[in-house]
Amino acid sequence: MTQGAEANNDHLVQSSDPEHPANLIPDLCRKFYNWGWVTGTGGGTSIRRGDHIFIAPSGVQKELIQPHNIFVLEFPTPKYPPSDRKYIRKPLSLKPSACTPLFLAAFEQGAGCCIHTHSQWAVLVTLLVEREKGPGGCFEISNIEQIKGIPRGKGKGMMGFFDTLRIPIIENTAHEEDLTESLEKAMVEYPDTYAVLVKRHGIYVWGDDVAKAKTQCESLDYLFQLAVEMHKLGIPWTK
Amino acid sequence: MTQGAEANNDHLVQSSDPEHPANLIPDLCRKFYNWGWVTGTGGGTSIRRGDHIFIAPSGVQKELIQPHNIFVLEFPTPKYPPSDRKYIRKPLSLKPSACTPLFLAAFEQGAGCCIHTHSQWAVLVTLLVEREKGPGGCFEISNIEQIKGIPRGKGKGMMGFFDTLRIPIIENTAHEEDLTESLEKAMVEYPDTYAVLVKRHGIYVWGDDVAKAKTQCESLDYLFQLAVEMHKLGIPWTK
Amino acid sequence: MTQGAEANNDHLVQSSDPEHPANLIPDLCRKFYNWGWVTGTGGGTSIRRGDHIFIAPSGVQKELIQPHNIFVLEFPTPKYPPSDRKYIRKPLSLKPSACTPLFLAAFEQGAGCCIHTHSQWAVLVTLLVEREKGPGGCFEISNIEQIKGIPRGKGKGMMGFFDTLRIPIIENTAHEEDLTESLEKAMVEYPDTYAVLVKRHGIYVWGDDVAKAKTQCESLDYLFQLAVEMHKLGIPWTK
Amino acid sequence: MTQGAEANNDHLVQSSDPEHPANLIPDLCRKFYNWGWVTGTGGGTSIRRGDHIFIAPSGVQKELIQPHNIFVLEFPTPKYPPSDRKYIRKPLSLKPSACTPLFLAAFEQGAGCCIHTHSQWAVLVTLLVEREKGPGGCFEISNIEQIKGIPRGKGKGMMGFFDTLRIPIIENTAHEEDLTESLEKAMVEYPDTYAVLVKRHGIYVWGDDVAKAKTQCESLDYLFQLAVEMHKLGIPWTK
Repeated sequence: MTQGAEANNDHLVQSSDPEHPANLIPDLCRKFYNWGWVTGTGGGTSIRRGDHIFIAPSGVQKELIQPHNIFVLEFPTPKYPPSDRKYIRKPLSLKPSACTPLFLAAFEQGAGCCIHTHSQWAVLVTLLVEREKGPGGCFEISNIEQIKGIPRGKGKGMMGFFDTLRIPIIENTAHEEDLTESLEKAMVEYPDTYAVLVKRHGIYVWGDDVAKAKTQCESLDYLFQLAVEMHKLGIPWTK
Repeated sequence: MTQGAEANNDHLVQSSDPEHPANLIPDLCRKFYNWGWVTGTGGGTSIRRGDHIFIAPSGVQKELIQPHNIFVLEFPTPKYPPSDRKYIRKPLSLKPSACTPLFLAAFEQGAGCCIHTHSQWAVLVTLLVEREKGPGGCFEISNIEQIKGIPRGKGKGMMGFFDTLRIPIIENTAHEEDLTESLEKAMVEYPDTYAVLVKRHGIYVWGDDVAKAKTQCESLDYLFQLAVEMHKLGIPWTK
Repeated sequence: MTQGAEANNDHLVQSSDPEHPANLIPDLCRKFYNWGWVTGTGGGTSIRRGDHIFIAPSGVQKELIQPHNIFVLEFPTPKYPPSDRKYIRKPLSLKPSACTPLFLAAFEQGAGCCIHTHSQWAVLVTLLVEREKGPGGCFEISNIEQIKGIPRGKGKGMMGFFDTLRIPIIENTAHEEDLTESLEKAMVEYPDTYAVLVKRHGIYVWGDDVAKAKTQCESLDYLFQLAVEMHKLGIPWTK
Repeated sequence: MTQGAEANNDHLVQSSDPEHPANLIPDLCRKFYNWGWVTGTGGGTSIRRGDHIFIAPSGVQKELIQPHNIFVLEFPTPKYPPSDRKYIRKPLSLKPSACTPLFLAAFEQGAGCCIHTHSQWAVLVTLLVEREKGPGGCFEISNIEQIKGIPRGKGKGMMGFFDTLRIPIIENTAHEEDLTESLEKAMVEYPDTYAVLVKRHGIYVWGDDVAKAKTQCESLDYLFQLAVEMHKLGIPWTK
């Protein structure tokens, strides 16, 4: 607890409730680290509770995050420029996540939690789609039970076994913040999606709440891993 | 313990004995989650003790299940319609597992525990068999030591190294409940089997007790993973 | 502790020393389970201390073994028939390991610990060697740093980077006990080996003490996994 | 604590601060063991704090290292011969790491921590580069987000997505100490590198502090694993 300098609005991240966002984020990040989703400070996680956005810091070992490392933003808040964002808690020694405007884009759509991973399975499917179909496009898979773990769209229930799941893929940019525009464009083109793949980079997944964002992220990662193995075995992703 | 509404017959799931089904199910689900068998709320587990069936709930993070989340059914109970099933404990905020009639089919055969996984190795072998042999059929493997972890049939001892293990594969359906009929048909066609693969979906494995169901499920998953690797290396599954 | 019937010579497996064989075997088995070496009751471990042999039981979940589940044999003891073996502690409800005569063969060579795994990497290299070279033969690899984790032979120091490691492969048999003769024959043909692969089955690895048996088993498993990946990439195992 | 003979300067490795090098090294080694980086006593880790170098011992199970097993060297100290190195704490029953002169080479460049792994992904990329390009050369990858986890060079910030990461590869030698000269030559040829691959052996990674060395090592390992999978799928490493 040598973080005395982070004492601004500390009460916002101090809670004995394990379900409090400041406790959930460290817990989730430890799990994501073990899955290989946030290797070497990559990736990130953010939770909205009422008009507060809780965000993991940038450039730190994700499996070691503590509640007092968490940033808190007022919501809504401007996405740009960063200096206009209304931080109500800012750990002085840390930098806010470069994913912040992307998380905010998801929260503006009504999400309660947004997860960003560098999962290798996600990266590999973007490489396979790029080679097969060129730039743009989306990842498609059908006739796999785990598809039922993904919602059909806001308030539309879950997908069915015979449905084709489509996850849009956007081009990567030099700076993570610059992904925001194309992420929002993908959200407009695919209004029912709860995830956007970033080519050669990873994925953004969101959900109505923490449990939904996490389990949807797991189901998608399962499907990406299965798709890579299916490709190795020469089995097509759609029927 | 904010589950006050679940207080009906709570004593059925409260025990300090780690071997009590209400304690074993959360413990098993945590293990299965770490093996990738119940990713993103997929899969399930059920245990029979005397005339009580204990079942994990549907649509929840399996690694976080608590004893008070467990459903209890009287056994025997009607498989259809769901409304006729005799629940003697029902956590009010949760839904019973869609696997329930499939678990009941195993218990009617005398099983003490039934496990349903979405293991990718199981899914991949169903895809490989589908491509080689078309619809229907079964997974076959022989001359692998781990086959000895699977029973030859009720009261017939364990399989031998030179035996050919056969696990039937059934087609998947839009709704999990609708698998029951073909699962039962497979049980009639393969009266000695302790497992049924579901194409593009996963597997149901049962056993005389919890230890047998779990270790048989592990041995089968080992064989499926080995079979996928053997296929990649061009080595046939049977001699 | 419902194992009252196992109270014969209980003091032999009761110790507060974590280095005591009765505490080490459960600890090792938990680790081996997590590595996938003793899936579904497969595999086993045995430690010699003075004139006592401590052995994990057969047919149980290896990650759940407790000190009171351990068998103790006097050493030396006849390898055959099983009924002549001098058990000085026998948990009544359990069966001694079918690997017992194989472990005894290693102890007769002076080993202090013997490990048997069903590692898939070990099985896959036996399949690859079988296809390339037919029956018999051995696994060979050279010019990999990890080879230095394997002894050159009793009292001969460790292997070098430029040496070729050779692990003999024996045919599997219907009954594990029946491997003993060919295991001993391989020990004669390869007098410097600390391991014997069993085709389509797994591996036996021993060492002068527990740390050596375990780290040699890890180094070999590393080499088998690497060899399978090298084969997939078309890279030969020896230079 | 039966290490009474190791009582020379024990205070140097006794601290209740989890960030103390004598506590960090055992903690890191446990993590590295679980990632498969220090299998079977392979690999090692060293931390510099002021004029003290803390080093894990040689030939021990890395996941079991305790603070009292740590060597302490004065810094600077002669790299050769070993007998001239100024050890101010030497656990009597253990041998200092054969990696010592390699770690010292990194510390002389200003590193605060140096990690040596036997990661199979590192070994496999050296084998693939050897086959494609012959002896010498380097591993190259571009257009992958995780590259941003690697510094561009001392005080030059982090690499960008469109940059090409280059990690030099040196030939392995019979004795680990003999790698020092070629490691230092690679440091001269690639003055901005924070890592050197050793063909058919593993990798040395260093960083300004422990967090940087560890996260850079993770990012590199992620890239090596991805590169092997990309190769299997026929996708080139650079655009």
